Amino acid sequence: MKELTEIENPSFLKDLSIDELNELSANIREFLINSLSKTGGHLAPNLGVVELTIALHKAFNSPNDKLIWDVGHQTYTHKILTGRTQFFNSLRKYKGLSGFPKLSESEHDVWETGHSSTSISAAAGFVYSRDYKNEDHHVIPIIGDGALTGGMAFEALNHLGHSGKRVIVILNDNEMSISKNVGAFTRMLNHMRTSKKFKRAKRISSSVLSVESHLFDLTKRVKESIKTFMMARNIFEDMGFTYYGPINGHEISELISTFDYCKQLNEPVIIHVVTKKGHGYEPAATDQVGVWHGVGPYELETGKFLKKIDENKRSWSKVISEALLRLAKIDERIVAITPAMKNGSALNQFAEELPDRFIDVGIAEQHAITFAGGLAISGMKPFVSIYSTFLQRAYDQVSHDLARQNLPVVVGIDRSGIVGGDGETHQGIFDIAMLRHIPNVNIIMPRNAREAFNMLYSAFNRNELTFIRYPRGNTFFDIEDDFKFQMIKKGTWTTVKEGNELIFITYGPSVDYIADIIKKHHLNATLINARSIKPLDKQLLKKLLRSNLPIIIFEEAIKIGGLNSAILEFASDYKLRSDHIYSLGIGDAFVPQGDKKFVYKDLNLDEDAILMLVELALLNKKNEESKEKKDTVLWQKRNG
Amino acid sequence: MKELTEIENPSFLKDLSIDELNELSANIREFLINSLSKTGGHLAPNLGVVELTIALHKAFNSPNDKLIWDVGHQTYTHKILTGRTQFFNSLRKYKGLSGFPKLSESEHDVWETGHSSTSISAAAGFVYSRDYKNEDHHVIPIIGDGALTGGMAFEALNHLGHSGKRVIVILNDNEMSISKNVGAFTRMLNHMRTSKKFKRAKRISSSVLSVESHLFDLTKRVKESIKTFMMARNIFEDMGFTYYGPINGHEISELISTFDYCKQLNEPVIIHVVTKKGHGYEPAATDQVGVWHGVGPYELETGKFLKKIDENKRSWSKVISEALLRLAKIDERIVAITPAMKNGSALNQFAEELPDRFIDVGIAEQHAITFAGGLAISGMKPFVSIYSTFLQRAYDQVSHDLARQNLPVVVGIDRSGIVGGDGETHQGIFDIAMLRHIPNVNIIMPRNAREAFNMLYSAFNRNELTFIRYPRGNTFFDIEDDFKFQMIKKGTWTTVKEGNELIFITYGPSVDYIADIIKKHHLNATLINARSIKPLDKQLLKKLLRSNLPIIIFEEAIKIGGLNSAILEFASDYKLRSDHIYSLGIGDAFVPQGDKKFVYKDLNLDEDAILMLVELALLNKKNEESKEKKDTVLWQKRNG
Repeated sequence: MKELTEIENPSFLKDLSIDELNELSANIREFLINSLSKTGGHLAPNLGVVELTIALHKAFNSPNDKLIWDVGHQTYTHKILTGRTQFFNSLRKYKGLSGFPKLSESEHDVWETGHSSTSISAAAGFVYSRDYKNEDHHVIPIIGDGALTGGMAFEALNHLGHSGKRVIVILNDNEMSISKNVGAFTRMLNHMRTSKKFKRAKRISSSVLSVESHLFDLTKRVKESIKTFMMARNIFEDMGFTYYGPINGHEISELISTFDYCKQLNEPVIIHVVTKKGHGYEPAATDQVGVWHGVGPYELETGKFLKKIDENKRSWSKVISEALLRLAKIDERIVAITPAMKNGSALNQFAEELPDRFIDVGIAEQHAITFAGGLAISGMKPFVSIYSTFLQRAYDQVSHDLARQNLPVVVGIDRSGIVGGDGETHQGIFDIAMLRHIPNVNIIMPRNAREAFNMLYSAFNRNELTFIRYPRGNTFFDIEDDFKFQMIKKGTWTTVKEGNELIFITYGPSVDYIADIIKKHHLNATLINARSIKPLDKQLLKKLLRSNLPIIIFEEAIKIGGLNSAILEFASDYKLRSDHIYSLGIGDAFVPQGDKKFVYKDLNLDEDAILMLVELALLNKKNEESKEKKDTVLWQKRNG
Repeated sequence: MKELTEIENPSFLKDLSIDELNELSANIREFLINSLSKTGGHLAPNLGVVELTIALHKAFNSPNDKLIWDVGHQTYTHKILTGRTQFFNSLRKYKGLSGFPKLSESEHDVWETGHSSTSISAAAGFVYSRDYKNEDHHVIPIIGDGALTGGMAFEALNHLGHSGKRVIVILNDNEMSISKNVGAFTRMLNHMRTSKKFKRAKRISSSVLSVESHLFDLTKRVKESIKTFMMARNIFEDMGFTYYGPINGHEISELISTFDYCKQLNEPVIIHVVTKKGHGYEPAATDQVGVWHGVGPYELETGKFLKKIDENKRSWSKVISEALLRLAKIDERIVAITPAMKNGSALNQFAEELPDRFIDVGIAEQHAITFAGGLAISGMKPFVSIYSTFLQRAYDQVSHDLARQNLPVVVGIDRSGIVGGDGETHQGIFDIAMLRHIPNVNIIMPRNAREAFNMLYSAFNRNELTFIRYPRGNTFFDIEDDFKFQMIKKGTWTTVKEGNELIFITYGPSVDYIADIIKKHHLNATLINARSIKPLDKQLLKKLLRSNLPIIIFEEAIKIGGLNSAILEFASDYKLRSDHIYSLGIGDAFVPQGDKKFVYKDLNLDEDAILMLVELALLNKKNEESKEKKDTVLWQKRNG
């Protein structure tokens, strides 16, 4: 048997027997459990699809046949089989192996994903292209049961099913998405999984189908009988798909036979494969709450996480959910909504203590936002917890349903800013630019836990549409059990430190990042906590702009449309000078994966870059009378 | 029988017999056909739901029971029954009656709509609120079969069906959305509509159910048998709903009996009502291509449209689709995609001449965009035609799927800018701010038909992700049959007119609007056609900024994040002065319905406002040395 590192492409699978494929799957599983214990990564989802991935690469011919992975964090076995084993020590690290499909990594990655429910739409594009060009390959989107509850998957099924075109959709049904799945759809899959048909189909498929690929020789009669047994009339049939399953996703021979059979069909097919997340590694397989979905390094034998927990710190998600729970205990109109992110958003305790007021709507961000609107207009106080990058799915619902009707929903934008290992598809850097131009919107960001507590309290009390941002990672937690919430006045900033040579304006935890730099380098600078990004603190801002001191705006967000733009627009409206304003933010490009310290350097957000800009700003100030100003464009390109 | 203008609220319906209700429905239909022949409006959808609306208001008690109208352009009968008949002469006009539900118009409008597929999500909010507060009313979302193909409706059904909570969804199945419906879902409804069960159910329901509201007295046995007959196992049952139907949507007695029966149920129910768009008015009812969906004034007897057609002009949609068709005949990789807007986007001729390369995906904007991505990545040249306001639904797909992978899709943003009668929910004013901060995006807007032709040609040839905007309304059409397409260099503006006192920068048809004002008032102004909103024409812009002449930026788009912001950001980066820049654009508020000339006045975009700003800018220029500048804030508020 080949070493995993010797694999260059999946063609070697064609010569392996079922026994050898099973051996390979054991090797891959062992490798993943080992490798991820050091790097961390999406362990449970990947352990669930080892056999499925092997069977797909055995039955189909990638990259001619197109494997399109929904979400994409379950592609580790695919990466191993396509020659990337040796890069796993750099998994999810700066300039390392991506945790998702990447066009630039391999010709076998034909479509990039990250957000859920896109694979069938993309597949429809590949299918139409193939037929326009009279090509003959297979197109195989692989989608989880959780992702299938996202509305756009339904839109795509509706179109592709109706088209009658040849496509093989693999439904990877692991009975939970990231949290435990919810919704009628899940109940239906559950029913299909446990029905008598399943058991009967299973027996037939393993006895009749599993003799490698001899199906071509089967008579039509036998094929038809298989079809009759294995097909259940269900939602997929309603959508125009021929349904096969459920198939045991850990039985390689059964998988291959089914794929080989379906390859012969000239119609939209869906194959329902039942897998188990974490299969083969006890701690992950028995995980009921989903902490093994994506993990940091862990101890191999025990599954104990190695990351040291600082008792004085908590995750930002936990800070917000703790504040929310305390407020919800006082005000019974408060309701918490999550689109399938109970764990990620640290809402477990809320769900436990106030189960009636905790609502997981599944992967359905659009619905989550408008549902909250319906609650708000009829007198409740909904809080929607949502990752910045996933809020993008609900842009229209925020504008059309919430903002236009001016409904008092509070949205917690989790994971805003740089997110680290997940990379490009998950960066929370667009939300300010995406929201700031929508009327009736408040955008705020707390500097620390105390400000977060008071902000959330104020948002519920002001009864306005409010977006409260907070990043990934931890913060110092110093909230007493009897903490007294205090109102924060709308549109007010605070002056953290006074100085005479220049002014920094920033928001969120960046306030302390800049404070540390000011202190370390003894900068004679004023530091402003612009905790309300919309509306601005107009009074304070006027004063700052009129001071004629250089102003440096720092934001861990895309520059176009961000706080920098807001301040420039304000200065322009009031005809205040703005040529002493300098901006530090994320340029006009997507931001790759990696530890914040590396990414910050790339983006000119690191200490060195800040100090250089300070120098330039002070120099420009000095030369002001001569009107010889240095622009910041070359400076921005210094690393480019 | 009451005059329609005497109706104050729907309570009078309780005393009417079925015959009287039928008489009322005839009166309403006559009134609508008459009234809309003068004002225009959504005639066909409203004629389809006269009986349905009467039956809903008879069986339920609005506003205690909550009627939530999806899309909302079918609420004219609802408006009549809730006391708004006398306002129909102002329908869709400035400060007149809205063509959609409006909270401010009536307590019977409990939720505002405009975009499709939101009603079930909103209803879920109302339902949860009701149960939290131990209230007892009904919640009744009314959704069309077209709107049901939008993904978020599926997300909402999945959640609400699973919840088991009491709700009555009315599926208004008129066999077409705005264009003829497509998709597997439609095929399924079609099957349900024509199956034997339908006919049988119809007979039973009319014989057993239609004796007014005596159903309460029916024995359980009879109820059960009705249930058995009327329920078909189908997709809705899979989603956790109890299904009743199909019901004839023009038989008031049948409708009322069914509603009364379903009121007694304590579970999620869906009632499938079959209606006919345009019912009762021959020209609208027999309309196969959907021109009667939304109309201008027409001649009552003949159904001839009264609007004079200027032979030298064409709609912008038609200009673009004509260019597209010509290009597609040359390049067989070009494919046209529409999310259910074949007519609105004037793609009929394309569909007729190149049916294989015309794809209507139904109301499914998210899918449309990602589907186009799949086509582009595999070598096709997709063009997605989409209204500005509906593109909002696909913000994430644009960013995550197209821009991040840098895929060469060309998106035609139709109806960008002020749209007139449709009002707040349909204004195309956010797209620039929504797109400009996304990396890899090109945003362009043609001044006239010739520029449009060349822009589309250039976009396909440059093979980059390009958004080409064009407004509602007509433009002069002077394209020869043998028009030779020419490349437009990326990121280039043109100087339309040179002057010495001030500079106007604008884009799209606004170029000619400003040109006319310059001419009329003999302004000594340079006029720039900023036809590429992203990227900017950096070279020209630098020159303009350095000229030290006052610069007035005019845009029919939201100011925050628009071209104005782009220019301010650019000036700041290059440390060029910007205090001589003045901005004319849409302030931070939603824009109401009405003729552009009224709306322009409200928004300070009218001729007077422009001239006042010119005066202010020239004054500031004159006083430059004294540094006494007038800000534009008070000026902006002059009408507020």
